[in-house]
Amino acid sequence: MTRDDCLTMDAADPLAFARARFALPEGVIYLDGNSLGPPPVAAAPAMAASIAEEWGGGLIRSWNDAGWYDLPVTLGAAVAPLVGAATDEVIVCDSVSVNIFKLAAAALALRPERRAMVVEAGDFPTDGYVLEGLAALAGAEVRRVARDGLTAALRDDVAVLVATHVHFATGAIHDMAGLSAAAHAAGALTLWDLSHSAGALAVDLNGAAADFAVGCGYKYLNGGPGAPAFAFAARRHWPGLANPLSGWFGHAAPFAFEGGYRPADGVRRLLAGTPPILALKALAAGVATFAGVDMARAEAKSRALGDLFLALVAERCPTFAPVCPATGRGAQVSIAHPDGYAIMQALISRGVIGDFRPPDMLRFGFPSLYVRYVDVWDAVDGLSVVMSADEWREARFATRAAVT
Amino acid sequence: MTRDDCLTMDAADPLAFARARFALPEGVIYLDGNSLGPPPVAAAPAMAASIAEEWGGGLIRSWNDAGWYDLPVTLGAAVAPLVGAATDEVIVCDSVSVNIFKLAAAALALRPERRAMVVEAGDFPTDGYVLEGLAALAGAEVRRVARDGLTAALRDDVAVLVATHVHFATGAIHDMAGLSAAAHAAGALTLWDLSHSAGALAVDLNGAAADFAVGCGYKYLNGGPGAPAFAFAARRHWPGLANPLSGWFGHAAPFAFEGGYRPADGVRRLLAGTPPILALKALAAGVATFAGVDMARAEAKSRALGDLFLALVAERCPTFAPVCPATGRGAQVSIAHPDGYAIMQALISRGVIGDFRPPDMLRFGFPSLYVRYVDVWDAVDGLSVVMSADEWREARFATRAAVT
Repeated sequence: MTRDDCLTMDAADPLAFARARFALPEGVIYLDGNSLGPPPVAAAPAMAASIAEEWGGGLIRSWNDAGWYDLPVTLGAAVAPLVGAATDEVIVCDSVSVNIFKLAAAALALRPERRAMVVEAGDFPTDGYVLEGLAALAGAEVRRVARDGLTAALRDDVAVLVATHVHFATGAIHDMAGLSAAAHAAGALTLWDLSHSAGALAVDLNGAAADFAVGCGYKYLNGGPGAPAFAFAARRHWPGLANPLSGWFGHAAPFAFEGGYRPADGVRRLLAGTPPILALKALAAGVATFAGVDMARAEAKSRALGDLFLALVAERCPTFAPVCPATGRGAQVSIAHPDGYAIMQALISRGVIGDFRPPDMLRFGFPSLYVRYVDVWDAVDGLSVVMSADEWREARFATRAAVT
Repeated sequence: MTRDDCLTMDAADPLAFARARFALPEGVIYLDGNSLGPPPVAAAPAMAASIAEEWGGGLIRSWNDAGWYDLPVTLGAAVAPLVGAATDEVIVCDSVSVNIFKLAAAALALRPERRAMVVEAGDFPTDGYVLEGLAALAGAEVRRVARDGLTAALRDDVAVLVATHVHFATGAIHDMAGLSAAAHAAGALTLWDLSHSAGALAVDLNGAAADFAVGCGYKYLNGGPGAPAFAFAARRHWPGLANPLSGWFGHAAPFAFEGGYRPADGVRRLLAGTPPILALKALAAGVATFAGVDMARAEAKSRALGDLFLALVAERCPTFAPVCPATGRGAQVSIAHPDGYAIMQALISRGVIGDFRPPDMLRFGFPSLYVRYVDVWDAVDGLSVVMSADEWREARFATRAAVT
């Protein structure tokens, strides 16, 4: 495999058209779209138009005239096909953390005799943190269970299994259909966190009989820093769907200002407060970068990019140990080194951006819409220079920032 | 009083300088800033720069390099002087509804032997809706109490009084210090909703010994449609402050990815998920429109504008009944008419924008940063034409939109 081989593969890539949809800076190889997607080219003009014409020109009238009122629903419908949901089963709102709270509480309400919530130990921690807060309030219990013990943990007091489809650190993919079937067999519901799979893999929520799901707007969906999240509730659960964050936008008639809460039908009742319109506009531009993209093809390309990366690292930088599975892996790879933090900082200073996850993990994402095979080649080339020249030993790379 | 008198008053207005900070459309008199503030001139370039340079140029690095990580805190510090809080007692995050949930739950946790939450019947309904959801989850009780019965309702099982400082419909102002003192004498805590007072009045949370507060970013603070809200927790409550929405951004060390939740100090623990950076950028531009504005002066001007409006309506459109108090009123006025909806639509079609609140209320806001005395004159002039020419009887004004 040579750099020219990579260029040849890029020339033949059926998804190559999508890269022009992104405003990527010169001189940077961006392999951290799994943490924050880059801006779509369309985001800046969409935001400018929304501020000038809708907010500035239409003012309050834009809630009706510019479709603001329905935006969480219409944007949810645009996200739905990316995750295998019906268009009316997804709504965009709040953050992943807040939506986990809502849907885990909804699951507890649907299983009133069961008080335990099972979550995978060692996966992205906000899921477990939020369940702790919910448990303290609702008189429930959080059980953190090792990955290989999740099925065995589905005892008859478990209301809901909360699992992240793709592990944030290792990239390992759960068998969503298998775990959902096991949960259902045990009488429990499932709440899937798609933060590292929506927009990366060909997710099929309904095919896997998922009950609930949340997902992230600012990673693979390219919606901007801290973009709103999305929430999925399978249609069969709508009749008994209880949202504890029962704010006015989830009311059946918000502008009737009724005295008591009367929930809207369907997933609209998952709304709480007034939707953040400008943030939704940016996310809409991000979701639109998937127009015409076949997700099975996107998944396969990311897998190929990751395989190439690991092969080149094994060949050129053998001191790194892969800590991601060889197969059954999301659109990211992870390699470990005791000095991982400083090495990543040195690599970033060379314009190759991945991220570090404690204690020793260098993580690289390969979103198929804008990462090229030649980027993988150049990234590993940069890493080999960082290592062979011992650049990472410079003192400036050792200082930890607030966000690492 | 003549139109020329109004122009003279505008020429002498010490707050006149602030109007240039807003991008207001030609031909519109905007009296609905109490529902959605207009865009600051600075909002569009700030957003463009944030998208191009921070998101696009800095990418993930901007969490550190562009101050994103601290933005909820730094923006909270900018809001604090507008509401009489210390700079470290306010944080910007989530929506008003979500923040009410957090802080009412925090109050319940501080008063574990008390399970009742008192809220004013007939005020903006999201407060009561959210308390219903919290009560169902936490085994608490919501008591909706008429405005004049709030003090008497402070029995010894009440954990928290949730009150809106300025009534959303009538504009009536609560005696925050008096009600807080009554609540404290009864052993209860206070949670103030400042949605209709922050940025409108000289709010003094600490002077009134308030315990908790929430406020709206998209009304008087001019932060854009659905802008993030803010939350206040008095310093004396920090040691026992429990946020049930215990997401990773409220953790003491989010990027350590610890297994268990360990709350950050102070109001940072009120964060839940990843902050919405682009929305916060727009809100920062909105809060900056208050630079150099004395809030006592701003409050007095809004009062004078409202007084002028009511006097002119009484003189020129006597069929309307004022439904706001003559004194002790926020920066808005309300007048009633059985055909209020159609009348407001006809008025809006003439370029005078207020809003309608059921069953019969026309509501007009007078934010002092951009509304002029001459605008008040012209608005009442427009209303008198709508009424004298019976314009509002046209069929096109009768159809109710989703957002009214």
